[in-house]
Amino acid sequence: MARIVMKFGGTSVANLDRIRAVSAIVKREVDAGHSVAVVVSAMAGETNRLVGLCREAGEPAPSLDARDVEYDAVVASGEQVTSGLLAIVMQNLGYRARSWHGWQIALRTDNAHGKARIESVDEEALGSAIDGGEVAVVAGFQGIAPDGRIATLGRGGSDTSAVALAAAIGADRCDIYTDVDGVYTTDPRLTKHARRIDKISFEEMLEMASLGAKVLQTRSVELAMAYKVPVRVLSSFDPPDAPGPGTLICDEDDIVEKNIVTTVTPDFDEATVTILAVPDEPGRAAGIFDALAAANINIDMIVQSSSREAGFANISFTTKEIDLERAVDVLAEQQPTIGFKALQSDRNVAKVSVIGVGMKSHAGVAATMFRTLAEKGINIQNISTSEIKISVLINADAAEYAVRVLHEAYGLDEPGNPART
Amino acid sequence: MARIVMKFGGTSVANLDRIRAVSAIVKREVDAGHSVAVVVSAMAGETNRLVGLCREAGEPAPSLDARDVEYDAVVASGEQVTSGLLAIVMQNLGYRARSWHGWQIALRTDNAHGKARIESVDEEALGSAIDGGEVAVVAGFQGIAPDGRIATLGRGGSDTSAVALAAAIGADRCDIYTDVDGVYTTDPRLTKHARRIDKISFEEMLEMASLGAKVLQTRSVELAMAYKVPVRVLSSFDPPDAPGPGTLICDEDDIVEKNIVTTVTPDFDEATVTILAVPDEPGRAAGIFDALAAANINIDMIVQSSSREAGFANISFTTKEIDLERAVDVLAEQQPTIGFKALQSDRNVAKVSVIGVGMKSHAGVAATMFRTLAEKGINIQNISTSEIKISVLINADAAEYAVRVLHEAYGLDEPGNPART
Repeated sequence: MARIVMKFGGTSVANLDRIRAVSAIVKREVDAGHSVAVVVSAMAGETNRLVGLCREAGEPAPSLDARDVEYDAVVASGEQVTSGLLAIVMQNLGYRARSWHGWQIALRTDNAHGKARIESVDEEALGSAIDGGEVAVVAGFQGIAPDGRIATLGRGGSDTSAVALAAAIGADRCDIYTDVDGVYTTDPRLTKHARRIDKISFEEMLEMASLGAKVLQTRSVELAMAYKVPVRVLSSFDPPDAPGPGTLICDEDDIVEKNIVTTVTPDFDEATVTILAVPDEPGRAAGIFDALAAANINIDMIVQSSSREAGFANISFTTKEIDLERAVDVLAEQQPTIGFKALQSDRNVAKVSVIGVGMKSHAGVAATMFRTLAEKGINIQNISTSEIKISVLINADAAEYAVRVLHEAYGLDEPGNPART
Repeated sequence: MARIVMKFGGTSVANLDRIRAVSAIVKREVDAGHSVAVVVSAMAGETNRLVGLCREAGEPAPSLDARDVEYDAVVASGEQVTSGLLAIVMQNLGYRARSWHGWQIALRTDNAHGKARIESVDEEALGSAIDGGEVAVVAGFQGIAPDGRIATLGRGGSDTSAVALAAAIGADRCDIYTDVDGVYTTDPRLTKHARRIDKISFEEMLEMASLGAKVLQTRSVELAMAYKVPVRVLSSFDPPDAPGPGTLICDEDDIVEKNIVTTVTPDFDEATVTILAVPDEPGRAAGIFDALAAANINIDMIVQSSSREAGFANISFTTKEIDLERAVDVLAEQQPTIGFKALQSDRNVAKVSVIGVGMKSHAGVAATMFRTLAEKGINIQNISTSEIKISVLINADAAEYAVRVLHEAYGLDEPGNPART
């Protein structure tokens, strides 16, 4: 008998037919003798509806800011509804089941409403409930902040709820059910050669999540890695009696055959800003990035190059498309202080990354990437690397092609590759 | 500076335009220097939507029964949303405001989920918040039960939340804003002579609420009476700077000019059951009403009359239309035990009541009623009385006419009557 946390996202609980399908999957695990806690998201569309109401209530103010506490109180109700409905359906199947809201568990967070971080989980009541045979249906995405108010964990936060619960109750596994049947070598919409991965390491998954792969929220992967919680990504649309194998996200050491490159991950949500002719003096770059940080704008891929004019440099960086306008506004405001000549921006860029723990021990991975792209005539605007990732910034129009050629170049097109057991 | 509780029902907060209109009314009271707690219902239609989801989740089980705990957890989310939205709108107007859910106050109830009774209100945090200038926006209809779960107070429960809060914080008044501008001498849809009442006693209002008048939940009036909370019924659709006087529900002693009859109240939601030829022996009637009570069917207006056959009696009673079918089923099952001959039922009946505290000290009120109806050829099937109420059961087709003639007979058609100051 194992302790299992199962998480179902918005499309998996989109309506009562879907919730009934989910109940059959939960039933399978309970009937197998496991202690089961289920974490649910809001029904698909519900969070957007609630966010829309909050935005409308907040008008004409441009954003909610200080009102995030109320935003949380409103938006968290979506998960509350799903958890109660699934509990009712499970009871109807003859199981003892109850819903748990964030404050009831209690899942304690910090005070950063709207994007709170989990600080602790009181697992005692929940753990003994599920060991006593009760199905615990937990409202995801929410906890209780030190101010006694409901706090939400940010979009995708139910993944994080599930992993945090799994860590707290020492779950044997945390199964994330979604609308895809696992993690793929690349976006299957871009190439028919994309393949489901059997096992992927926490580090690789973390890189993918950071790059905007929608499978798992970044923080949920961080938590899973920190607490060594094995996470499986599975489809809730498989028949409950014949589930697919999914993808296991686990410690690197639990992966016997390590691929050099495991995934090719595109990110279309990128934009570049280039600041021309910044005086080449100490503190100028700091001034730029301080101003951007103060405006809470995340930046990435910074490159400084010398300007044609002596004593000046060009600085360019990438940011998320959604932040571009604000970034340009912030810099324009700072122009007198920073003293640059001009600003350029470009939305028509994409970041393509190759990720693989095998890179740590293999040379030539970057060379393969650059050579492959060069041979296909794809120009690289910018490069950034980590220990297990190489990212290039290219023209957005070339990105899909780049994904396909890189997928082939690293052998990912071949059946059985990545072969991991 | 007074402490005021304001309550807004579902139609008053039906959408964000309505919520903004409500915020203007709240603003008026806060700007007048009062400490204000606002109790809100779910947006119109939202509770029905959530109840529908629960029912659908509960299928094929006929009712929710043991699942009421989850029903409460789901349905209470409607008020949670409204309270957050109104808090955001008030903040946008420059006020400090926050939402309070039932468990945050804490408003403690018994364990009777779905129709819980309030046991206590921890008023300290709430009271000091509003005295400190914060607008408290309280999610109505909900509290926290001894099992640590959310409990709802039954339909119309937000009225009860408001009165209980008013009692707990010693509010100077409790203003119930709704879609009518006060309590009327009778349903204005039945006669153009219906008049708004300036003041009505708790007892009268309680009789009206018990008879199904939709203005206030019965329990809210009981609470107001028990704790002597002056309650005003007002329209939220009046301009915020020119509110109508509404109707004050107060102690009988605070009403100087007491009318003999204050209201004529019809109740169309009635049905009769007649049990023919019950053996006239001790315990037979008890057997009937025990069986109905065990099935949780409320009955009213019991009449026993002798049967044509010696040694047998006929027993008839009224019940709510919604319970009729179940009542007939329960009795049919008990036929062998009780030993009656036949059952008759009739949905085409209505109860018309005249209510007035003045009856206590005036004779002839019943005689006026019976004579008036007799003169108009309206046959009385059944009569029941309390100290301040006389009800007759008549054919439903005659009920509107009966209301009009009684309204006139007791002088309620005349302007200034009821005149209460």
